[in-house]
Amino acid sequence: MNRAPHEADEDVRTVDLNADAGESFGPWRMGDDAALFPYLTSVNVACGFHAGDPATMRHTVRLALEHGVAVGAHPGYPDLPGFGRRELTMDARDLHAAVVYQIGALHAFVRAEGARLHHVKAHGALHHRSAVDDAVADAVARAVADAGGGAPLVVLGGPAGARMRAAAERAGVPVVPEAFPDRAYLADGRLTPRSLDGAWIGDPDRVAARAVRMVRDGRIEAWDEGETAVEARTLCVHGDHDGAPAVARAVRDAAEAAGFRVATYR
Amino acid sequence: MNRAPHEADEDVRTVDLNADAGESFGPWRMGDDAALFPYLTSVNVACGFHAGDPATMRHTVRLALEHGVAVGAHPGYPDLPGFGRRELTMDARDLHAAVVYQIGALHAFVRAEGARLHHVKAHGALHHRSAVDDAVADAVARAVADAGGGAPLVVLGGPAGARMRAAAERAGVPVVPEAFPDRAYLADGRLTPRSLDGAWIGDPDRVAARAVRMVRDGRIEAWDEGETAVEARTLCVHGDHDGAPAVARAVRDAAEAAGFRVATYR
Amino acid sequence: MNRAPHEADEDVRTVDLNADAGESFGPWRMGDDAALFPYLTSVNVACGFHAGDPATMRHTVRLALEHGVAVGAHPGYPDLPGFGRRELTMDARDLHAAVVYQIGALHAFVRAEGARLHHVKAHGALHHRSAVDDAVADAVARAVADAGGGAPLVVLGGPAGARMRAAAERAGVPVVPEAFPDRAYLADGRLTPRSLDGAWIGDPDRVAARAVRMVRDGRIEAWDEGETAVEARTLCVHGDHDGAPAVARAVRDAAEAAGFRVATYR
Amino acid sequence: MNRAPHEADEDVRTVDLNADAGESFGPWRMGDDAALFPYLTSVNVACGFHAGDPATMRHTVRLALEHGVAVGAHPGYPDLPGFGRRELTMDARDLHAAVVYQIGALHAFVRAEGARLHHVKAHGALHHRSAVDDAVADAVARAVADAGGGAPLVVLGGPAGARMRAAAERAGVPVVPEAFPDRAYLADGRLTPRSLDGAWIGDPDRVAARAVRMVRDGRIEAWDEGETAVEARTLCVHGDHDGAPAVARAVRDAAEAAGFRVATYR
Repeated sequence: MNRAPHEADEDVRTVDLNADAGESFGPWRMGDDAALFPYLTSVNVACGFHAGDPATMRHTVRLALEHGVAVGAHPGYPDLPGFGRRELTMDARDLHAAVVYQIGALHAFVRAEGARLHHVKAHGALHHRSAVDDAVADAVARAVADAGGGAPLVVLGGPAGARMRAAAERAGVPVVPEAFPDRAYLADGRLTPRSLDGAWIGDPDRVAARAVRMVRDGRIEAWDEGETAVEARTLCVHGDHDGAPAVARAVRDAAEAAGFRVATYR
Repeated sequence: MNRAPHEADEDVRTVDLNADAGESFGPWRMGDDAALFPYLTSVNVACGFHAGDPATMRHTVRLALEHGVAVGAHPGYPDLPGFGRRELTMDARDLHAAVVYQIGALHAFVRAEGARLHHVKAHGALHHRSAVDDAVADAVARAVADAGGGAPLVVLGGPAGARMRAAAERAGVPVVPEAFPDRAYLADGRLTPRSLDGAWIGDPDRVAARAVRMVRDGRIEAWDEGETAVEARTLCVHGDHDGAPAVARAVRDAAEAAGFRVATYR
Repeated sequence: MNRAPHEADEDVRTVDLNADAGESFGPWRMGDDAALFPYLTSVNVACGFHAGDPATMRHTVRLALEHGVAVGAHPGYPDLPGFGRRELTMDARDLHAAVVYQIGALHAFVRAEGARLHHVKAHGALHHRSAVDDAVADAVARAVADAGGGAPLVVLGGPAGARMRAAAERAGVPVVPEAFPDRAYLADGRLTPRSLDGAWIGDPDRVAARAVRMVRDGRIEAWDEGETAVEARTLCVHGDHDGAPAVARAVRDAAEAAGFRVATYR
Repeated sequence: MNRAPHEADEDVRTVDLNADAGESFGPWRMGDDAALFPYLTSVNVACGFHAGDPATMRHTVRLALEHGVAVGAHPGYPDLPGFGRRELTMDARDLHAAVVYQIGALHAFVRAEGARLHHVKAHGALHHRSAVDDAVADAVARAVADAGGGAPLVVLGGPAGARMRAAAERAGVPVVPEAFPDRAYLADGRLTPRSLDGAWIGDPDRVAARAVRMVRDGRIEAWDEGETAVEARTLCVHGDHDGAPAVARAVRDAAEAAGFRVATYR
């Protein structure tokens, strides 16, 4: 069975706190990684296809390691102007190659610092597609198997992540379930689409309370009705807004106050 | 001293035969790798910045390994429309990152096949600049040190390669000297610019005779006057024309007839 | 009503013969425009987003005008590696701007030669989407209204082109119905997807016979069953294969033998 | 003679105030055009090669016209990650086509709003190269002649602009001399390279005082020694920093206090 060994080996009351990082491109800045990293335990670094560029990747990897933050690859569709948030009907074989390429490029910067690749997480529309399309999920999972050096794939922690989990199992790749305390969930476990009101939650205290509920109870109230199950070995907060450090700090403080150790996996 | 250990360890009468490969991009074809590879012992695979794309890279790596051809990375400037033949005044730190990125991406496809990266060779204007600009040469050499996994840097085999050799030595990277039997040389050891008549030689017999002269005598007649010294642990033939397989075969046959074993290094 | 005035003004027994052109990119060649243009009366020139580059566009415009071939713009999705054949979920407002941009760029080369833009035709997945998605069709049609200088939009000539026609009417843009004698049709008027056997027809005589049937009878046998209606003010042949000139010549000869004048519209 | 007719026709005590605009790209923001435009009389809009994208171009054109600001095209080298500030050794014919392409694309958005293209100004390294390389200057000037619809080329107003002026004259394109009050000048009339201390001046009052000196006296103190001549039919202030609106307002107020009318040309 494909359950990640590190999940079983660790105290269940440990939780990782991650954010996307390295999303600047050329002369354009996005996010404030230096302000955010003190609160995180892992980051998902853009690999140049939807954001990031080689110098930004090198800088982000070094900055993360200086803060003791574990570095994962964050591959996306080849679509800079759309920030990887637009769906692109790539052939599954082209997609596998595109993900191997991105993981390999990020991996080189990680190795150059004497570190190891911590995880892989698909970005934006690629993440979304891999939750609903087996061919996409398999392309991503096989790429992680081929280029990840044993690193796990981060998947939606709940019923909506079933296809990603199954693809990872077929590829022999361990998984890490993730929850998004600053995103609303639908009752079926999917994230509420960004186009709907209330899909994103900015208030630090509210995000922190949701984070605690997720890791402690494995459930969260749904945007539409009732509750939905979430499994959270790692919690993701969004870094591309000015309030990101405050949110990350609030989540971290609340998790610790609730008795969790905030640390990464593996 | 930085002399590559494998040079000393091997029979001096062995020579490698290489060509650039994987230069297609998306729907556009360039070269006929499948027809050329039977005559080669190593290839320089484009990494997506001046040519190539992820699926082409994966295909080219597999094709090379099926033919027993060793796979090297061929990073270039980020300039698809110019095929990496235009100079771009990149900051040395940006350039280092761009080369690490490309080597890492290619390396992932090589590792996925259970092979190892054989060498790194700079492409086009990046190769040219690294022969004349220490900052560029250092950026390339340090990137090979950081991402090459011990693979050597291919350098101009002769006086024009002195800066590349020195940079490799500073970076602790072994070098492999290369000669171009299908390119004319100037008396100072530089390649004759492509814009000049006779800079490129297409006749297979003539290229083969020059190849033998290079590996046997370590010298070649110069385009302008006299002769110039060349050191050739590997011979490069150009693959981007219809006659490429005939040239490669002629070079291979002539080298063997002259008593050389055609095989790769390491 | 939005019927193009030029359609009514001309002899119905005139037919235009078009092909895509200017599909090279940087160092990569595609098609043989110089061999094909003698048989054509109009061309659809790639605008740099899915194929083509500025120098190729200038060259193609000049070559067309030298052959007396009318020049149209052929905008596509921003996707060079996918050749514009992959669907991309662009926001309709972004798409409008992308099409205005491409038409404007091509238009500049046409104006620089003292000519006028003849038509606009969407490429690949953009053409396909505009046949089935009103928001896409409207974005394209409004872009033609904004940047086409009065040029008509080429639409699928038959029932499958209904949405494109309606969008053009909303935008106040004239239309030109087109048929594809080298592509199989489904009974509902759509083109048979390229992934199915027999979707593309390469034999010149067979393509020519289909072309005559299309322009003379306004009908063609369907790939699946029965026949489908086609309206053909212009006939498109594909230029991206070696047999393209022979096909174009066969279509032209057959149309003339059937009593049609092969000439462009307007 | 090539002196722009509109220069002679107008009161010499009128001065235009311009800035680069539309420099966002995809999800990345740069500058605050809406805050800056109230103080400007013309803008140079990025055309997608070094910055900008189609939707940003459309938005920027509309925003400018709403503020009564004249719209010019700002073509650059095809180099998004380098923001067009890196030199690229493009063939002159490729460069001509690249500039026609960019002007044409921007022109389409201007025409769609019922306006006319006001001017063309080369960006970054392209601007710099056109001041020192006749082939580059000719490529740019001929592109303006081909695609500018009569719009003038903005050139360095002083001795360093001589080659740009001469190229414009050869191409039959009118020129508009420009000065940079927030940039230091060398005694030979060139801008002080950005890498040197004091090359850029951020204090609004100091920039304003320099602007007045430039337009009133036609001279400015040089960074290295003495003074240099400047001719300023338009003054450029940089928009890519937070203090830009304050600088633009200070320049505008100071010019008006010195008796100049701040208005555009033509």
